[in-house]
Amino acid sequence: MAVLSAQNAYGELKKRYAQIIKMEYGANILSKDAETAMAPGSAKDREEQITAIKMAQHHLISEPKVEEWLNIAEAGVSGLNPVDRRNLALMRHHWTHENALDPALAEAYAQLEPQGVGIHVAHYRSGDWSQVRDWYAHSFAVAREVGQAKKDKLGVASAYEALVDRFSPGIRVALIEREFAALSQALRVMIPEALERQAFETPSLPLKGPFSEEKQMELNHRMAKAVGFDYNRGRFDAIKGHPSSNGSPDDNRISTRCKEEDFLPSLFGAVHETGHAMYEQGLPVQHRYQPVGNNLGMAIHESQSMSIEYQACMTGEFFELLAKHAQEVFGQVGDPSLSPENLYKLVCRVQPSFIRVEADELTYSMHVIMRFELEKAIIEGRLDPKDLPEAWNDSIQSKLGIRPSNNAEGCMQDVHWPVGIQGYFPAYTLGAMTAAQFFATATRQRPEIKPEIARGNFAPLTGWLNEHVHSRGSLVTAEQLILDATGEPLNARHYLNHFSQPYLGRPYTAPQPVSVAPLPGNTLG
Amino acid sequence: MAVLSAQNAYGELKKRYAQIIKMEYGANILSKDAETAMAPGSAKDREEQITAIKMAQHHLISEPKVEEWLNIAEAGVSGLNPVDRRNLALMRHHWTHENALDPALAEAYAQLEPQGVGIHVAHYRSGDWSQVRDWYAHSFAVAREVGQAKKDKLGVASAYEALVDRFSPGIRVALIEREFAALSQALRVMIPEALERQAFETPSLPLKGPFSEEKQMELNHRMAKAVGFDYNRGRFDAIKGHPSSNGSPDDNRISTRCKEEDFLPSLFGAVHETGHAMYEQGLPVQHRYQPVGNNLGMAIHESQSMSIEYQACMTGEFFELLAKHAQEVFGQVGDPSLSPENLYKLVCRVQPSFIRVEADELTYSMHVIMRFELEKAIIEGRLDPKDLPEAWNDSIQSKLGIRPSNNAEGCMQDVHWPVGIQGYFPAYTLGAMTAAQFFATATRQRPEIKPEIARGNFAPLTGWLNEHVHSRGSLVTAEQLILDATGEPLNARHYLNHFSQPYLGRPYTAPQPVSVAPLPGNTLG
Repeated sequence: MAVLSAQNAYGELKKRYAQIIKMEYGANILSKDAETAMAPGSAKDREEQITAIKMAQHHLISEPKVEEWLNIAEAGVSGLNPVDRRNLALMRHHWTHENALDPALAEAYAQLEPQGVGIHVAHYRSGDWSQVRDWYAHSFAVAREVGQAKKDKLGVASAYEALVDRFSPGIRVALIEREFAALSQALRVMIPEALERQAFETPSLPLKGPFSEEKQMELNHRMAKAVGFDYNRGRFDAIKGHPSSNGSPDDNRISTRCKEEDFLPSLFGAVHETGHAMYEQGLPVQHRYQPVGNNLGMAIHESQSMSIEYQACMTGEFFELLAKHAQEVFGQVGDPSLSPENLYKLVCRVQPSFIRVEADELTYSMHVIMRFELEKAIIEGRLDPKDLPEAWNDSIQSKLGIRPSNNAEGCMQDVHWPVGIQGYFPAYTLGAMTAAQFFATATRQRPEIKPEIARGNFAPLTGWLNEHVHSRGSLVTAEQLILDATGEPLNARHYLNHFSQPYLGRPYTAPQPVSVAPLPGNTLG
Repeated sequence: MAVLSAQNAYGELKKRYAQIIKMEYGANILSKDAETAMAPGSAKDREEQITAIKMAQHHLISEPKVEEWLNIAEAGVSGLNPVDRRNLALMRHHWTHENALDPALAEAYAQLEPQGVGIHVAHYRSGDWSQVRDWYAHSFAVAREVGQAKKDKLGVASAYEALVDRFSPGIRVALIEREFAALSQALRVMIPEALERQAFETPSLPLKGPFSEEKQMELNHRMAKAVGFDYNRGRFDAIKGHPSSNGSPDDNRISTRCKEEDFLPSLFGAVHETGHAMYEQGLPVQHRYQPVGNNLGMAIHESQSMSIEYQACMTGEFFELLAKHAQEVFGQVGDPSLSPENLYKLVCRVQPSFIRVEADELTYSMHVIMRFELEKAIIEGRLDPKDLPEAWNDSIQSKLGIRPSNNAEGCMQDVHWPVGIQGYFPAYTLGAMTAAQFFATATRQRPEIKPEIARGNFAPLTGWLNEHVHSRGSLVTAEQLILDATGEPLNARHYLNHFSQPYLGRPYTAPQPVSVAPLPGNTLG
């Protein structure tokens, strides 16, 4: 058989990767349809469809000739331009994740999700650890083995970094450790201070519901339009489940959930998901269906939803806008419960609590940091997963001063560990932290951002995000992207500053400039 | 490499076919979502997704090892039970369709659809034959070559039969020819007679619209529920496009289009699509995701929609039911325009016309038969596709006594030939004919069928259809299925009998018993 040139091998890789990315987008739409349109009796069939498509993707990427193409293209990499080089590196990175494991381990890892969901759903409400202990131990054992098997192949610093790399590629665990430590240390002081301050505030007025789903969605659509959601390349639906976004850059599907008594959760769900959608819809068209045109992973994705939800939409300017539209839509013009100040107060209420997904913004990070610390300790062999309940309860007590009375509100609440996505959690707080850093830079560079939000115009902000994040796809690593966009490495300072105004009523002063000392490098150069 | 046993090779084939059938179902849902939910700007992306999935299916079925598995399994076929034997024969049949063509011809055939749609849409309204003549010639040339290439590999009687076999496998062209000739001959007499009779009738009363989409859909849902559509494993939506059904047996999606001035087209669209859905939803669960569990192709599929639409729903009993619900839903209780008699008269109006998709039931078959005759003549080399306009106009004049004044209402109206699905047309009338034969048998065997329809209970009919058609999947050929269910080969007699009551007001008398002489055999034994 004739030997391919590096250019031709790279051409074959581009075709193959385009195919699997398109299949991925199709599978995403099928997942979303399952939430928004599908009848309940079709769930099993839908799982079968999606699994079959995913198996075919794996099949197409694992054929021996794909590895040959990679080898040939890499041998001639000097003939490629920088974008193609980066694209090739991302292909190899994806290929390594797909092919690093021997078949038995790959199968065990793949089985964690379908089996783990069932076990989680069956037992998490009971809090009966004896029912899930062995499964947690198994899941962590498999994840640890996966991390160890991938570590050297991916060229990352540790088994745990290999797990994180699946969800937030290009962000080093050493950096996460350092910034989470700084954040945690500051929050230990900040949370009690915020609670004390809150105790002396005039209480907020309760909302005057019920608020119909129809009206809530009218408000949600108004806000999504203001942010800039492109309804010509996407949909926004009300669903019964957790708010989510999915699909593809050219068909982005977002959804939120409406509770009759309070429209704020559905509204903040809406703007959060719109932030995700703006990222996808803003990815570079010229690199569509190539790895380099894809998003940069969950941490950066979360930074985009958080730039809207917890940055832009936590400003006084946004509450002015929101109050005006909420009063109109719900027919309560002039009602003090819908004043900007009252809405702000309702949203910014701090209350240490057990359940992560119901936590307020300030305490939320503590939930994430403790999960990061625990899963890392287990993967590194410093903690036996069987001892999780005690370790969990000690950790939340030390961070938030509360102790769960049972495992349902403790270590059994999340689906992540039973389904084998150890390494995912850091993305939530990394994203929130990055969002604060982006927003601080953007508002400094473009002073019109906040005043325009009050007028319902998010374009100055989303323009900045598009230029510095969305349009760059995966052309650089996540850490590099943050540095390019903000002039400094990812750090917790801006996030802490962001907290100080709503929760402490004064600018937060960082104890000292954050260290920017170089950390060991990682895979994607 | 170790040699597989026939059992193991067949096991591998079952896994592989399950995968591609699941992928097919997923792609179907993506197509349907494009009609019902997708934003317009996402159309190109959706096409890419579906094409990528279809390419992956072809890839998975065309790997050399699949042919090896087929050879090994067939060599040991005597060790398989009859169901597995039939399943294996269907796998080979599918494999042959997928692999019969050399790559250049396969590519040319595959390109007819994406290119042909654009050409059709751009020009069909103009009727300017010079714009499409060469494309029609190309499409027919490719189709003819495809038929010739597949003929021997499929073991069918002719190139044209190979084309028909793609859509209506297991039905011989000799049978279609014989029964279409009988039908055409009878309709030549029947249509003028029906027109004459109609001229002396009291005219129908016009409907008192407008009828909102919401109300029409309420009526449509009531009728779909009466027929038995399983809403737990499917959806029924209003759309702007042509009524359609798609999806999978466990997630069947149907839709209809509502026009404000007349609710009857949307209603008859609804019951037609419900008939298709009942077939899919009734396919045998124990053979799910295997060829033997799939439907028997377009002719039998159409027989199921037609069993509901033009058999069950053309009975006086159905019009009693419809009138009652329509009067309720539209708030016109007792209005004579919504009497059973008037609705019946409105639906049964005969009027020879140029456009197939707008034709009444009686003249519709003539549209199909002329297309069958013309496409067969071209594939057999007896007609030059460049002479289509003249041949078309002569044919419709001889069959319906009208002559188009331009090609927009003549040979350029349908999308089928420009997109390369020569061989599809016969399925429409084969289905209608088969439906009449099924309904005549069912109502003879179960006299309660019609009275129960008047009470809104279709279960006696759908139970019969399920037992004799749906639950049999592809366990036997289409011709065998009809014979088993009705005790006689497929023939036009029942269809003509069916016409006689509504259109002639008297039982039709077939000139002579239909010949049941054996015809040459075909592939699927």
